[in-house]
Amino acid sequence: MNFLKVTDIKDIEKLILKKIPTLKGKKEICKLEDSLGRILYEDIKAILNVPEFNRSTVDGYAIKSRESFGASQGIPAFFTLKGEVFMGEDTSKKLNSGEAIYVPTGAMIPNGADAMIMIEYCEILDDTLLIHKPVSKFENIMLMGEDVKAGDIILKKGSTITPENVGVLASLGIYELPVFKKFTFSIISTGDEIIGEKEEYKMGKIRDINSYTLSLAIQKFGIVVEKKIVKDNFETILEEVRSSTKNSDIVLISGGSSAGNYDYTSKVISLLDDGEVFVHGISIKPGKPTIIGRSKDKLIFGLPGHPISSMVVFNIIVKKLIESLYLQEDKDDFYYGILSQNVHSTPGRTTYQMINKTVENNEIIINPIFGKSGMTTLMTKSNGYIILESDIEGLEKTSRVKVYKF
Amino acid sequence: MNFLKVTDIKDIEKLILKKIPTLKGKKEICKLEDSLGRILYEDIKAILNVPEFNRSTVDGYAIKSRESFGASQGIPAFFTLKGEVFMGEDTSKKLNSGEAIYVPTGAMIPNGADAMIMIEYCEILDDTLLIHKPVSKFENIMLMGEDVKAGDIILKKGSTITPENVGVLASLGIYELPVFKKFTFSIISTGDEIIGEKEEYKMGKIRDINSYTLSLAIQKFGIVVEKKIVKDNFETILEEVRSSTKNSDIVLISGGSSAGNYDYTSKVISLLDDGEVFVHGISIKPGKPTIIGRSKDKLIFGLPGHPISSMVVFNIIVKKLIESLYLQEDKDDFYYGILSQNVHSTPGRTTYQMINKTVENNEIIINPIFGKSGMTTLMTKSNGYIILESDIEGLEKTSRVKVYKF
Repeated sequence: MNFLKVTDIKDIEKLILKKIPTLKGKKEICKLEDSLGRILYEDIKAILNVPEFNRSTVDGYAIKSRESFGASQGIPAFFTLKGEVFMGEDTSKKLNSGEAIYVPTGAMIPNGADAMIMIEYCEILDDTLLIHKPVSKFENIMLMGEDVKAGDIILKKGSTITPENVGVLASLGIYELPVFKKFTFSIISTGDEIIGEKEEYKMGKIRDINSYTLSLAIQKFGIVVEKKIVKDNFETILEEVRSSTKNSDIVLISGGSSAGNYDYTSKVISLLDDGEVFVHGISIKPGKPTIIGRSKDKLIFGLPGHPISSMVVFNIIVKKLIESLYLQEDKDDFYYGILSQNVHSTPGRTTYQMINKTVENNEIIINPIFGKSGMTTLMTKSNGYIILESDIEGLEKTSRVKVYKF
Repeated sequence: MNFLKVTDIKDIEKLILKKIPTLKGKKEICKLEDSLGRILYEDIKAILNVPEFNRSTVDGYAIKSRESFGASQGIPAFFTLKGEVFMGEDTSKKLNSGEAIYVPTGAMIPNGADAMIMIEYCEILDDTLLIHKPVSKFENIMLMGEDVKAGDIILKKGSTITPENVGVLASLGIYELPVFKKFTFSIISTGDEIIGEKEEYKMGKIRDINSYTLSLAIQKFGIVVEKKIVKDNFETILEEVRSSTKNSDIVLISGGSSAGNYDYTSKVISLLDDGEVFVHGISIKPGKPTIIGRSKDKLIFGLPGHPISSMVVFNIIVKKLIESLYLQEDKDDFYYGILSQNVHSTPGRTTYQMINKTVENNEIIINPIFGKSGMTTLMTKSNGYIILESDIEGLEKTSRVKVYKF
């Protein structure tokens, strides 16, 4: 048993990738309308200009800008009305000197025109347009390629698809996207005391918690293929873990990783086909009794049984690993705030302190949440955590801290 | 035409609820594992204590704490070993003076014991346990109800279900939740220039953008029942809007709300069954030409055609309204930062300035993003907005600003 040879949290990812060099994000194609939250597998390049023609950004009249110079409320400039461009029309109209052509918002600017004057500044007398202010060259026109130039990278690989960035894809006629295939997960809760949704509660038992918290956390970027509860029987655990390595990319075993009597996880992994445990203990708090191993190219985590420890390890190791495999560049999972009280850390271990936030005078105040580590409500009350590195003893009240969201 | 009677943004929600008093969130039941992101319809009260029994938080021995007082590395305290409590067992064992019983993490503390000593501090000689440090009363025990007391409100109505807060629900055996039913939406893009995914592109046309951005934005809290593109023909628009009011709770009409030649939206709404337009223009920038109306109890928005204006109006009106109908209390959609340059606003209109953020020296720097309002890339480049109230002229560089996320 090499329980005390804990691994530094900073080395975990490198170690996993060294042990399973084939572990990486794979590609699949996703429809634009199903792409919310998906991560781009490749850079997306513009194959066209946007707009593809000089486009009016207002309802008004296309003119030659230099013919408006000097126009004012008192001395209007005069133009001869020459019809209109219709919405969606590929116009062949040509604007000559002294002429104005009506163009609605979004429609094509006729050849010869170089500016749009908004209808608000216009007056019409029979076939004549009077304008009361000058417009400058290209005013109220979006030029061909001004929004996006053909060949530009418009979204980088690793970008998360949001409502804001599908717009540019749709404008280019890109309706299918190369995204990272979601990793598949099995969740196995172990323990004689654990009972599931369909079992009747008996005094002394504990309802399965971690499979729900983990399952919802995974849904943000992966697929939960199966969830099962297994009693503390070595053969049964071995069989169930073995079958899970066939069903999914990553197996999470919850519980069974402490130094207690019923610690089977490590032994189970080593007995699997080409099985190996390469992390047994990590220098973090909470979450120290974490096991990481593999069976061939399948990754296996033995997570601590305490709900908060389990979520901390999931967030700082499993989630960060997947983000890294997904080449995620635009993680928006942190903010800064001011600590409301002193926080102590455990020397030699990186400490993850649960916090919640309040707002005072345009400043975010970070309040540490304390409580026993088995408490489910500790997590409900917190909305993030701060990290105390292993080489510091604590952080003082009023320190400026970086907060990570779950 | 009452186009110039713009409504103040602050009055919009009150006005909508006055015009459609029946508009409110409805209840439905959701399974715990499908509840990610759903909003609680009612307070959730604990029906049980958590834990339901005094539970060990460590692997070790249950003892009477006062019998450990004075124990040290040099002078251990001695106890007689009296077997063990098994995981998940409703133990009837009773601990007498001078005895110790093994209890693993999560198992029930036997009657008569009031503390747990971790195995790390224990030594065993035959049937005798030697402990090398004292433990205080209730040390390493989570008392019945210490995490959650029966009757406590554990999650308030309006809370968003997160991975962190399903744990406490599962621990209580709550596997079904009362959540707000998702509002259903129809999205209608209007305009002769607009072409859809299946239409062939022709010069002068513009690909439909808003139905994709809106559709993904809605997916965060609602259901898109249908998306359609309708040419600028009055009768067709009328028929399509009428059928959409039958198919969904809220109809979003994109485009057709400006003062241009092809402005049918307002007229269409007024011709619907019990139809009424009660907002035609809002004192905001961008997004001024927004129409809000109803047909009986169905809510109809005429959104501006420009992609950014459309998303701004969606976020500050439609999304905020739904959040309010969902009684959302835990919105986590803002942060603070320092403005990197001066920003000007439009007097008399509340201005929404797109921004992106960078990080320098533990501070979030907010960079305004400028560009023409029809640009799709403006949105791709920004990850939120700041609000400039209608009574200020602008904000100076280095101002501390509140940023809202999309």
